[in-house]
Amino acid sequence: MIPERFIYRDESLYILDQRKIPDKIVYFKADTLDKVSKSIKDMMVRGAPLIGDTAALGYLIGIVHIKKPKKKITKSEIIRILKKNSDILKSSRPTALPLFTATDRMHSRAISMLENKPDILSEKDIDDLKKYLKKEAFEIIKEDISSTQKMAEYGLRLLKLGSTVITYCNTGALATAGIGTALGVITEGYKKGMIKFVYPSETRPYLQGARLTSWELLKNKIPFKLICDNMAAWIMKTEKIDAVLVGADRIASNGDTANKIGSYSLAILAKHHNIPFYVVAPYETIDWSISSGNDIKIEERDPVEVIKIKDKFIAYPDVKARHPAFDVTPSKLITAIITEKGIISPVSKKNIIKLNSF
Amino acid sequence: MIPERFIYRDESLYILDQRKIPDKIVYFKADTLDKVSKSIKDMMVRGAPLIGDTAALGYLIGIVHIKKPKKKITKSEIIRILKKNSDILKSSRPTALPLFTATDRMHSRAISMLENKPDILSEKDIDDLKKYLKKEAFEIIKEDISSTQKMAEYGLRLLKLGSTVITYCNTGALATAGIGTALGVITEGYKKGMIKFVYPSETRPYLQGARLTSWELLKNKIPFKLICDNMAAWIMKTEKIDAVLVGADRIASNGDTANKIGSYSLAILAKHHNIPFYVVAPYETIDWSISSGNDIKIEERDPVEVIKIKDKFIAYPDVKARHPAFDVTPSKLITAIITEKGIISPVSKKNIIKLNSF
Repeated sequence: MIPERFIYRDESLYILDQRKIPDKIVYFKADTLDKVSKSIKDMMVRGAPLIGDTAALGYLIGIVHIKKPKKKITKSEIIRILKKNSDILKSSRPTALPLFTATDRMHSRAISMLENKPDILSEKDIDDLKKYLKKEAFEIIKEDISSTQKMAEYGLRLLKLGSTVITYCNTGALATAGIGTALGVITEGYKKGMIKFVYPSETRPYLQGARLTSWELLKNKIPFKLICDNMAAWIMKTEKIDAVLVGADRIASNGDTANKIGSYSLAILAKHHNIPFYVVAPYETIDWSISSGNDIKIEERDPVEVIKIKDKFIAYPDVKARHPAFDVTPSKLITAIITEKGIISPVSKKNIIKLNSF
Repeated sequence: MIPERFIYRDESLYILDQRKIPDKIVYFKADTLDKVSKSIKDMMVRGAPLIGDTAALGYLIGIVHIKKPKKKITKSEIIRILKKNSDILKSSRPTALPLFTATDRMHSRAISMLENKPDILSEKDIDDLKKYLKKEAFEIIKEDISSTQKMAEYGLRLLKLGSTVITYCNTGALATAGIGTALGVITEGYKKGMIKFVYPSETRPYLQGARLTSWELLKNKIPFKLICDNMAAWIMKTEKIDAVLVGADRIASNGDTANKIGSYSLAILAKHHNIPFYVVAPYETIDWSISSGNDIKIEERDPVEVIKIKDKFIAYPDVKARHPAFDVTPSKLITAIITEKGIISPVSKKNIIKLNSF
């Protein structure tokens, strides 16, 4: 079994520190919104949908821990705090859309609930708000769980029986509150005989494929062999690969998709070998406000994360490195985008199941 | 300065253990042919031309350490030993052609020298043979050094002034007895203003790019930033990349090129972005006996080398991995092959400078 990604207990959030997996199962106690933001920034928690869930819970933590006011608190004062909290959460990382969608949803629910309240809030008003937001956060998590099931169901319709697939980064149970996005399709696909073998790619520099996806595949007893990212092309050429399945952090309204650095490379290699390239992501990953991938902000992280592995330098310490954390795959390289609301093919602009878009 | 890759002293070979670089400068004392073979197998020494040089010296070690025979040694006895030695060296690794060329050259020189000797060899005959083979081994090394200079000279003719390039694995001074192949072009190119910036790719799993190439670039004060292998496509798309330069372990007679795993991937990505892809390798890397890359044996190494870095597991220890050490880039993806004898374009079948082939 994959351990709980987070535990909400006694108004604190315990976050599985995924940087330690598979070596250790350690939970980070986040009892302030700042600590939740830090857990996202430092990549203890990662995976776009899970970042969204964590942000929702972070927003909740931000309100449950508002100190009992000596004098009555004003509505404008609490709105100021909530706005600041919302900004802190959204500044944790720039690329994954669910962080913004979940935070904005919590915030707009809070604001609309406060609309009907008097200017001076009573203790009961604050308690009501807390209860209401707790319900909302768990609703977001519930939707994440059910959408992963639906994505798996849809994804399976595109796969051939007994497929061998390549997958990237970690898009499994560890990236969501449910069964995962791309890896969810694989896990369900294996149960139904649609998937027979998986090549997870290690995904430098954070090695989510080596550390997390391999671990999930082992736990689910799915046959696989790990590959280095630079082996994918050769595996495509020398083994029979039926599909490449990846997740997404943000999808522009034309289908261009930002995902973990290296996804763009895989998409080019898949096209070269005539292998379908599928993006599996919740519908809320689509950013209708931007027309193309050019508008997606790509996070550039600390280069030291490239030259250090497990606190040991793998290059001379003076070496400078680049560390874009994401890249953008143009829609013309994407065979289909699989969401819980349906499937669309950006390359042919065809609506495959239900989804009208792009 | 790059340290000596090997030192031949008092009939022993001291081999720079490149697995320890850049952390330590350590030499492995190889006073038997078996130890030389082990140094190649275990990748203390790597880089196709340097493996060739080391094999030549290994062959020499095999004869200088033949024990002074109690009774006179027969010619057939010594030929039997030399044949066995030659087989041991050639079984060290399967892919890099210079290992075979250098060993075969040493062996055929030995055999032809012995042809004019009597059936029972005197001590002087053995001494003559040793001296002759020592001269031959150092001739091979001298040719390696001078061919790297010539390749650099030719390679520069293909580059634009102020180029930014991507390079792969390590093809520098550490891969040859001279200035290197692809990295030799870059080093010389920087001196002459043809190269202004380099992106070395880290080259998993052995990280030759991160450990060795970055270190050489630092020592030569050439501006660069290290990238992970999965970043190359994104760098090609978002930065102005003028060329990709790689080495070769074996080139088939149609131009298909075996090189470090990941080279094939880079070649596809370069083509997708309309960036020239250059292979820089000594002429002796061309295997005229095979018609295409399909005939090149690709070494599959121990998968544990993929899941361990610096003796620490980067994946759950039960994880199985693939570890092809090389891949084959089809000639149609190669803009030009640069050798010390001239340049040819496999893709256009055009002889660019001198070289008539393919």
